[in-house]
Amino acid sequence: MNKMPRIVVDMDGVLADTYAKFIDRYEASFGRRPTHEELLGRKVYDLEGAADIRNAMHEKGFFRDIAVIPGAVEVMRELYDKYEVYIVSTASEFKHSYRDKWEWLEEHFPFINFQRIVFCGDKHIVHGDYMIDDKVGNLAGFNGTGLLFDALDNHYDEEYHRVHDWAEVRADFQSEREQARAMEA
Amino acid sequence: MNKMPRIVVDMDGVLADTYAKFIDRYEASFGRRPTHEELLGRKVYDLEGAADIRNAMHEKGFFRDIAVIPGAVEVMRELYDKYEVYIVSTASEFKHSYRDKWEWLEEHFPFINFQRIVFCGDKHIVHGDYMIDDKVGNLAGFNGTGLLFDALDNHYDEEYHRVHDWAEVRADFQSEREQARAMEA
Repeated sequence: MNKMPRIVVDMDGVLADTYAKFIDRYEASFGRRPTHEELLGRKVYDLEGAADIRNAMHEKGFFRDIAVIPGAVEVMRELYDKYEVYIVSTASEFKHSYRDKWEWLEEHFPFINFQRIVFCGDKHIVHGDYMIDDKVGNLAGFNGTGLLFDALDNHYDEEYHRVHDWAEVRADFQSEREQARAMEA
Repeated sequence: MNKMPRIVVDMDGVLADTYAKFIDRYEASFGRRPTHEELLGRKVYDLEGAADIRNAMHEKGFFRDIAVIPGAVEVMRELYDKYEVYIVSTASEFKHSYRDKWEWLEEHFPFINFQRIVFCGDKHIVHGDYMIDDKVGNLAGFNGTGLLFDALDNHYDEEYHRVHDWAEVRADFQSEREQARAMEA
């Protein structure tokens, strides 16, 4: 049997709905929610006058109570048995984010062994077969196949295969396994 | 000019004298320091009756006040300009260790950009040209050249080029650069 392929999975925007929390912060500051149109191709904190919202990531607790992206737990649990799944998340800029993210994973993804958690700055140092990430810059430096997880801010990026939700991720890896089996047969 | 080679540098036992702190804990529990002989090929917490000492790594603050290994700051500063230096440290098992290690690096190695800090569990996921580590298991899974940083507990390991201190690391990379220049000429 072949070695299990390695999937590198991002947290913010892929497992965790971090941008929904930024939208709440925007609303608290500006008294309205940004429109869908405004967010196409942009982060919340790239909107006019909203740059300070990015600093929320330095707050203790910011990353602790974020909502899970629908389907992430179920599909990750399936993938975890069939692939070498690693969580690779950018954390180094925000010293409180480590513990928050660690506890968040422990709460929502208890089946993930701590050995498979990587908190880094630049993701170029990690290698694998597949990377699921909402940031083109991370996929661009990756040695394997990149899957761009859909987000409003990456709406105009066309260089990578886009997955719109976790059901699509499941389907893609199901057909990947079928192809692999067909090639072995 | 070629791309800068990447050096992956471990923290505990390489930059930070973590095992000295375990020895202090041993002395506090057993009323004596372990002998040099006892520690050859063994961690402090592998000594008889001392397994609990390993749990100190779960304590908040344990990794914050560790002494710097002599020469590490000076040589790392030199290497940092000539190589793509990454700190890659095992932290995932100990949720408080992240912030302690982050603040420790900020205090003693302020020239290291946070983008170059990786806290992981299993180091097999990181790639590079050189790895400086005191654990054979980490070097064994590495794609590049491993340098085994001398420690009492790795005393009997002979599979890797051993560097006894940071002066030797400096000398090794100086001759590496001279060879690279000679090959380019």
